[in-house]
Amino acid sequence: MAQLLRVQNFNVSSDGYGAGEGQTLERPFGHADPEAMFAWAGATASWPRRTDPGGSRGLDDYLTRDHGRNIGAEIMGRNKFGPQRGPWRDHEWRGWWGDEPPFHTPVFVLTHHPRPSFALGGTTFHFLDADPATALAAAREAADGKDVRLGGGAATIRAFLDAGLVDTLHVAVSPVVLGGGSRLWESSDELLDRYHRDVVPSPGGTVTHHLFWRK
Amino acid sequence: MAQLLRVQNFNVSSDGYGAGEGQTLERPFGHADPEAMFAWAGATASWPRRTDPGGSRGLDDYLTRDHGRNIGAEIMGRNKFGPQRGPWRDHEWRGWWGDEPPFHTPVFVLTHHPRPSFALGGTTFHFLDADPATALAAAREAADGKDVRLGGGAATIRAFLDAGLVDTLHVAVSPVVLGGGSRLWESSDELLDRYHRDVVPSPGGTVTHHLFWRK
Repeated sequence: MAQLLRVQNFNVSSDGYGAGEGQTLERPFGHADPEAMFAWAGATASWPRRTDPGGSRGLDDYLTRDHGRNIGAEIMGRNKFGPQRGPWRDHEWRGWWGDEPPFHTPVFVLTHHPRPSFALGGTTFHFLDADPATALAAAREAADGKDVRLGGGAATIRAFLDAGLVDTLHVAVSPVVLGGGSRLWESSDELLDRYHRDVVPSPGGTVTHHLFWRK
Repeated sequence: MAQLLRVQNFNVSSDGYGAGEGQTLERPFGHADPEAMFAWAGATASWPRRTDPGGSRGLDDYLTRDHGRNIGAEIMGRNKFGPQRGPWRDHEWRGWWGDEPPFHTPVFVLTHHPRPSFALGGTTFHFLDADPATALAAAREAADGKDVRLGGGAATIRAFLDAGLVDTLHVAVSPVVLGGGSRLWESSDELLDRYHRDVVPSPGGTVTHHLFWRK
């Protein structure tokens, strides 16, 4: 079985933004309200940060729990790791993900400012200054035969799409309008020259799931 | 995490039959045409009997590949193992599933006529004369912490539903009308007193997926 590069559970607004403008330490999604975009996943039984035993087990749960299935590594852009720009001023701060990051695999953070790797609660963060194909080769090697997840943000996904490297994408489109920020697409129709697409409204939430795989 | 009892990828006709009348060695589904009922799954990349590298990776593939996720044992009725009725006349014939059955776990076959267990290509078949609760206890023990799949047929699923033991069900309803055979329900509405339900038309096929989880 080939090692796929998969985008899983990436959330965008109805106008195609994965995050709003003005990302800060306190607001990882800038002016976007993450609750409005992620509520569909937070309502499911498989949501990793769930603290009570409930949650739905219908369609949205299939999508939520697929996030980690057969994933051996993740690639993310620097802005998914933290809000710092330019040279690192603070190596002590170790990302937005707390002491138990939800990845539990090697994670490759793309940045023009590499820094030493470190391990945190079963996740190892590596920092790479590399083009998409080189980064993917490193992640595949680390994934030990499993698939690689492309975690975002939008600019990172665009770069890998433009390089023709993405095998499957799941994008949840929420009805909120952001008007600005980090944009994945103007319309998901842009991918139809290269991908098949299923469009599936969430029965329990307000989002519409867009599922793509290569033609 | 609790060990769930899950029905996965069970196929019924629009009038609720999981198999037609007149099951024989040559026609495991009796007068029903299995191709018409299972084509949605056969078109996906994860279909286990796929012989070419293609196949869809949209919604139907999520459902197909969930069949084995975190499953540690299966329970099935005798008619899913083979067409014999009454005392076993032939221990040499080892089920419909060939030399490499697709289960790869312990499988508990419910029958009033127990016979010795045997292993075949990573699957071990056990034969139990037991009520649903007792069979489920045995399967949970064998599943080593993982979930148990309830494989069908319709009468077996009904017995476990009536005993209140089923946690989740995925049933794919196809547009064919059978008019007779082994019936799961007259309408899936019958379960709504005890279960939540998502109804999701397959974007790529002709079936409608019904996903249930306990209230």
